[in-house]
Formats: sequence, structure tokens, C-alpha cells
Amino acid sequence: MTHPDFQPCTHNLTPPATRIINLPGDYGQTDFVMRLGGRLAQVQVGYETWGTLSRNQDNAILIFTGLSPTAHAASNEEDDTAGWWEYMVGPGKAIDTDRFFVVCVNSLGSCFGSTGPSSHDPATGKPYGGNFPELSIEDIAKAGHHAMRELGVDHVHTVIGPSMGGMSALAYALQYPDELDYLLVISAACRALPFTIAVRSLQREIIRCDPGWQGGNYELDAEPLCGMRLARKLGLMSYRAAQEWRQRFNRARVPAHRASDEMFGVEFEVESYLEYNAKKFVGTFDANSYLYLSRAMDLFDVAEHGGTVNAGLARVHVRRTLVIGVESDILFPLEQQEEIVTGLNKAGREAELVVLPSIQGHDSFLVDAERFSPVVQEFFAQI
Amino acid sequence: MTHPDFQPCTHNLTPPATRIINLPGDYGQTDFVMRLGGRLAQVQVGYETWGTLSRNQDNAILIFTGLSPTAHAASNEEDDTAGWWEYMVGPGKAIDTDRFFVVCVNSLGSCFGSTGPSSHDPATGKPYGGNFPELSIEDIAKAGHHAMRELGVDHVHTVIGPSMGGMSALAYALQYPDELDYLLVISAACRALPFTIAVRSLQREIIRCDPGWQGGNYELDAEPLCGMRLARKLGLMSYRAAQEWRQRFNRARVPAHRASDEMFGVEFEVESYLEYNAKKFVGTFDANSYLYLSRAMDLFDVAEHGGTVNAGLARVHVRRTLVIGVESDILFPLEQQEEIVTGLNKAGREAELVVLPSIQGHDSFLVDAERFSPVVQEFFAQI
Repeated sequence: MTHPDFQPCTHNLTPPATRIINLPGDYGQTDFVMRLGGRLAQVQVGYETWGTLSRNQDNAILIFTGLSPTAHAASNEEDDTAGWWEYMVGPGKAIDTDRFFVVCVNSLGSCFGSTGPSSHDPATGKPYGGNFPELSIEDIAKAGHHAMRELGVDHVHTVIGPSMGGMSALAYALQYPDELDYLLVISAACRALPFTIAVRSLQREIIRCDPGWQGGNYELDAEPLCGMRLARKLGLMSYRAAQEWRQRFNRARVPAHRASDEMFGVEFEVESYLEYNAKKFVGTFDANSYLYLSRAMDLFDVAEHGGTVNAGLARVHVRRTLVIGVESDILFPLEQQEEIVTGLNKAGREAELVVLPSIQGHDSFLVDAERFSPVVQEFFAQI
Repeated sequence: MTHPDFQPCTHNLTPPATRIINLPGDYGQTDFVMRLGGRLAQVQVGYETWGTLSRNQDNAILIFTGLSPTAHAASNEEDDTAGWWEYMVGPGKAIDTDRFFVVCVNSLGSCFGSTGPSSHDPATGKPYGGNFPELSIEDIAKAGHHAMRELGVDHVHTVIGPSMGGMSALAYALQYPDELDYLLVISAACRALPFTIAVRSLQREIIRCDPGWQGGNYELDAEPLCGMRLARKLGLMSYRAAQEWRQRFNRARVPAHRASDEMFGVEFEVESYLEYNAKKFVGTFDANSYLYLSRAMDLFDVAEHGGTVNAGLARVHVRRTLVIGVESDILFPLEQQEEIVTGLNKAGREAELVVLPSIQGHDSFLVDAERFSPVVQEFFAQI
């Protein structure tokens, strides 16, 4: 299904097993019409799959990702490297690929196979850069929806999403209420709180202030790396939890041979941890993709689908929703997962909240297999 | 007492009532010897005073400030503009200048009258810039101590400090245990936790990554303003609390006439608030002072005064210590104020913790007069 004209993303780091679907545009239209007014003449979606679609097409799971992952959620036949949710997705695992046909899509606006700012604009032959149209979470959900249709799936068993993916999953349920049965939303929210908006706004500004950003029109081999590195550090600080760092690092100093010579350079282990992880990220993700996806999260608001958050949630009428939240999450705090469940329950929908005491903050779903696996396993066991 | 050769700080924004003392160096030395090995040939301390020193010199209060304030804690005869702690310091107020002789010092390393990186190095005639010696909280305490001596005060009734000033106050009590009677520590800590170190480390790196920083040797009229603006925004995010912003801003958008034309520019009120406050700060504080003071806070550790935090605290033997902490403080969380009181109590010292439910986070002491005033008033009423 890989399209011969596919333009690789900035860094060409699209995972080897990621396939590409060309969307036909909106139904009845040539273009893919964006929620906030823009249009894309060609849209591609990167995706990976696990398991087999049943004859009556009733076992399809769609996974939306957080801001930065690829569609490579787990190892598969074409790519045996571990995916970002390796512990969760696979044969006999909580998202059981012996039972389900699992699809994970790279988000529209990202850079791992799906159309985004680093893709070539067919009108100019150059990357969209800062000319990419304003992106919304609803657009990401729509691209995922259209991709499933192209894959021959008209009705999805369960839509799943952690973090930004949870917003995309909600947007899916809001836009295609009759085309899914179950919903699993992890560490996400109906809409961002001002503290979270502030964190992301500052991350974006740090990138925009890097002279290398060039108003979004940097050359793809001359990215705003310094801005990206610092923005990622701020991200890491919001993804993890103070308590975890206290246990892991406390005030440990780096040994002399790893200490920095720079003025005010790395001295504490926590600084070294941030430096290591930020450097690992930089160069693997397109700066403009980061900006567009980050802003889309700020803008997303379930209340736009009905006037209030509860009126929006009332439009979700899946058979059952499971929401998982983590006590130590400062980016999408627990009250936001409670809001989803309370709103659904008020509308008479079956929805359950599971609160986990993981200490890894917003990132817990990526690392706390011990706590997350049984909850997701139980959810599917009951269906 | 203003020294004729006094070199104004970067921006020459030293408040009009701030006077300057020239320290004679350490006792028995010409130089002021820094804890981490450096030396300063000339040290000046900016300070302001309120009230009158009693004949037997038993009513002196010394206030250390947080990272960025001047010595102008409150209005006085020479400067009737409101100070940073106007509600707290004055005739009949909680820190009663009818009863006490109150001195507030600008911290060593700052830029409002005290020697810091923007001061001229007598050896070169140029600003120290990045050649300023490594600074510690203990040095700030020592400069304050020596300034009091020069003012004729050998024994201080109470040493007070909020935030970084609380660390300076602890360092004062550790270094001059017989020269004070009471201690009042607000929203401070015995040592920084890794999350707090991470916040400050990233602030410093944002400044250092601004091309204008020039390794610390920028021209004083060509500062790294963009880096300072972004670092200040991160500061504001750590000083305030998510809950307060939810109440104040929630998801309010700025009206069209205030919206930014820039890509990814200001759209939400919380972004506008950060922009306004960061711009107000930039250009009023020397970037290198920010870096040196920020790092000093990371390095400070009561455990260095005895092997463990509790052994350090056991060296503090004032008559009574009051520690105030705020529930919503994420920068110096409550457990850190508890640690001070627990440690002092273990050593048999009289120490009390007052926990306030203020919602303004670490900054509460600056703005929550209603809660802070009565607690401080009561403390002095009991003495």
C-alpha cells in the first residue's frame, strides 16, 4: 500500500514497518477539509497493523498516539524492534493481537508517514513548513477514521488513545458516534487547563525563538535543534513527576568524568538525565510538527461539540468507556479524567474511571506495565 | 554611606532609597573569600532600613530577599513607592517598624546595589560578567552579616527570609549561630529537590542558549533579552499554582484586538498573562545575576554543615524558629518546610510549622497578605 510518490518526513525516520495510505479526500470532496478552515489536497496516513481482521470485521482496534510517537506501537513481522507500547500490544498481551486486528496510526501533522508540515505541498513542491494549515485534534481523528475506511473497516470495536491520543479518541467518538463500540482514554482530557496550555505555549515559544526556526521555513537539514532540545526538557519535566525524580536522583552529582566544562553546565544527575533524553529526541521529530500538534492540543475542547463539556460528552454513545488516570500526572491531572467519566455518566453512558498510583506522572502509561496491563486486560476480558 | 566609586548595576535600577555599604573584607583578610574558592577584592551591599535601632541594639531584624527583589521591601522616608513586601513591613504592620529596626539587604550576586556579575571588577575596570566567582547562599548570608556589623549591629533579633531568602536566613543561622535570637523561614528549604533543580537548570540553559548571552560577557546594553523573557515565563509557571490559573483564566481567549499576529502567538489569556509579566521583568534584572543566584540555590545544602540535614539543623540554636509553608507550592513543596521543623525539633529546638492554604503557590508570601500577616504578627507578639 506504500504510495510511490510518498515524500519521507524530515528525518526519514519513519519506521520500516509503517505503511502509507493515500486518503481520497473527504467524501464528496477532492480535498481533506480541516476543521479550522484549511485544506489539504493530498493526505497520507502512516499506520502499522497487528493481528488479522475478522471476516465480519468486528475485531478492529484503532490506537491514536501521544504527541511524538510513531505508528510503531509494538514489534511486528516487518519490524522486530520494540515499539513505544511494546508491553501492551501483542499476542496474549492486554491489547491481544491474537483476538484483535490492531491498527496504530501516525497522527496527521506528525512526521512519521502521515502528512504534516515537513511533507511536500503538491502546489509548490516544497515542504509546507509554516504554511501548513492550522491543525485540530478533530482533523487527526478524521484522518484516522478515513484511514480505517480505506483499510476496509467501517466500524471499529475499540478506539484507544493515551495523552494526545486520548483527545483524538474522544474526537473520534464525537465525530463518528455510530462507528465504534468501546472507548479507552488514558491520561487525557476533554480540554487543556491553563497550566498545561502555559507549559506547551512556552515550549512552542522556545522553539520559535531559536533563530534556526526561521518562521517555520527552516531547511529540513538545518532545524532549530537548540530550541527543540530545550522544549523537550520542559516536556520531560511536565511528563514525569517530582516524586519519581526524588527517588531516582535526589541530589546526586554527576561524577567528574561526566561533568560539563561549560559555565553552569551539567552538575546534578537530574540535569544529566534531561540532557541525555532531550538529545535523544532532537533530530528525530520535526519542529513544525511539534508546534502544530502542541497547539492542536491547546485548542481541543469537547465543549465545542455541544456548547458545554457535558453536552459534548452526551454525544458519545459507545457501549462502554474506560478512562485511566494517574495520581502523579501534573499535565493532565486526575480531575480531568474524572470530568470525562462524570460527564458520560450524567448522560447515562456506562463509563468507569480507574485511578493508578503510578509515580511516573503523565508518562506512566509508557512505563508502568505492571499497573496498566491488568487494567486494560480486564477491560477487554469483560467485553 | 553611599560610596563615591559605586558602580551602578546593569540597568541602574537600584531603588533610590537603597544605600551602599563597603565591606572591609573578611575579618583578618583584605578580600571577601567565597565559600567555593573565589575572592572578591571589593564588596558592596545595597540595603534599606526602616525604624530605629534601640540603644542596646536588641531590636534589629534582617530580611533576605528571594532571587529577584531589591532591598526596597517597603516604602520609607526616602522612597514612598510600594516595596515588594509592602503589606508586611511598616509601622504597626506584622514586621512592625515602630518596634523594630528593619534592614533589608540586596543579595550578593544581585544587581541592585550589591556586588554582582554586572559590577566592575577592580582588577580590570570592566564588569565581571562570566568571570564572577562561583556564588553560594552562604556568601549571600555572609555579606548580609558583614553589612549588619558595618551598620553597628553585632546581634540580630530575628533573621527573616522568604524563598531564596529563607535559604540565606538558614545559612546565616548556620554560620553565625550565636548572633541571632529568632528565625523566620518562609516557603524555603534545606536543599533543593531534583524537580526544582530541573526547573532552574532549564531556565539557566534557556538564557545561555540565547546567542546574546555571549558566554556571560554580553555588553550591558545588549543583554540576552529573549532568553530572559522565556526563563521568566518558566519561573512564573513554577512560582504560581495550576489551581489559581484555573480560577483566574481557565480557557479564556484574548479578545481579537489583543491577539497576536504571529504564528502560534498569544491566543489564551494565560499566555497573555505570562507575556505581560515576563516583559515587565526583562530589562530590570541582570542575566548573569540570575544565573549565579539560581545556581547558588541549587547548590545550597544544609547537610554540608554537619554531614546530614538534621546534623546541620542541630547547629541552629536560635530561641525559636517559625517556618511557613504553602500547600500549593510546587517549587518548595510543603515536605521541605516540614523537614526544617522536624530536624530542629529532633535537635531539641523550639520550631513551629504553619501551613497556609493559599492558592498562589510559591509566590503566596508576596500576595496573600490576609493569610501571611496574622501569622507573622502572632510570631512577634509572642516574643
